[in-house]
Amino acid sequence: MNNNIVPLNELISQFERLPGIGKKTAQRLAYSILNQPPERAQKFADALVNARQKIHFCKCCQGFTDKEICDICENIGRDKSVICVVAEPKDIFTFEKTREFSGLYHVLHGLISPLDGVGPDQLKIKELMARLSDSTVKEIIMATNPTVEGEATASYISRLVKPLGVKVTRLAYGIPVGGDLEYADEFTLARALEGRNEI
Amino acid sequence: MNNNIVPLNELISQFERLPGIGKKTAQRLAYSILNQPPERAQKFADALVNARQKIHFCKCCQGFTDKEICDICENIGRDKSVICVVAEPKDIFTFEKTREFSGLYHVLHGLISPLDGVGPDQLKIKELMARLSDSTVKEIIMATNPTVEGEATASYISRLVKPLGVKVTRLAYGIPVGGDLEYADEFTLARALEGRNEI
Repeated sequence: MNNNIVPLNELISQFERLPGIGKKTAQRLAYSILNQPPERAQKFADALVNARQKIHFCKCCQGFTDKEICDICENIGRDKSVICVVAEPKDIFTFEKTREFSGLYHVLHGLISPLDGVGPDQLKIKELMARLSDSTVKEIIMATNPTVEGEATASYISRLVKPLGVKVTRLAYGIPVGGDLEYADEFTLARALEGRNEI
Repeated sequence: MNNNIVPLNELISQFERLPGIGKKTAQRLAYSILNQPPERAQKFADALVNARQKIHFCKCCQGFTDKEICDICENIGRDKSVICVVAEPKDIFTFEKTREFSGLYHVLHGLISPLDGVGPDQLKIKELMARLSDSTVKEIIMATNPTVEGEATASYISRLVKPLGVKVTRLAYGIPVGGDLEYADEFTLARALEGRNEI
């Protein structure tokens, strides 16, 4: 730091702890706070504390909510026979944005990753299995990322769930809509061929 | 927003109000807060309020400080005969980083810009003139940006200050160190030629 104004440096280092925010950006953001009226800083501070205090995980799907059970789980209009299984709470919002899915969700809070010391016990798999105990759920869609960890987690859960007579599906692989064949990698292209549909 | 969790949306919109932070980044930052322990959010909140409450402008140079007079103005080791005039408080830190300047600073808090309705009266020019009233100051260095507004402000102040017998200088124009001639624009190159030095 090129100044010895303690509260300024403290604010800069708080911004720097955010993901993807480097030193320069942190400085710029801190200065922007100093250029705003004090009420703005207070509002920002309140929003931080408020969000962290009030938001926790839904008892049912483990997604974000400020209630006991989240709005999606409680919505009687949603199809309770399908559960879309995702790695992180924010993935729910990504799917909701498509407006194409009317079932329920389940958040694992991570993926199986032996290298990072994450095994099935650290994930919310027990909670998923509990939701399958009555026979309401007919299908679970594994919507984890198409990475080694995502695939491993999907097949682990698939092996657990199939014996219960629940159908397990996986998101389709293929070329992205609006994408260019020239830029598609060979693995994606191979999967797109494999999964071809009649038109 | 694709969720109706009010405290989350409020936090996202607070991040979005920061300069250069778009919707996606704001969401990412908000989620990162939810993934940290509540004490971290509280610390961040405290830093925001603290910085905004404690930091104000130095009575002398108008730069940032949490005291009445900033450390630079109060440092008896600094050369009180030279004042470097800058547009924004953060510019002081930029110059301090060079470790090449041992004089004092003065922050104008803006530049003359008729289009934005900013005239000399909105800037801290009166405060600068007050600092020149005894004859301690022998030189002022105009270190405003090399833009139309920066130049206009520099020459306005120069006209005010020169009659007091104070030398007024301007930062040198030229090619940046480590820069490539090929990428220097014609105006910069012309100024670099004009300001050439014997070696």
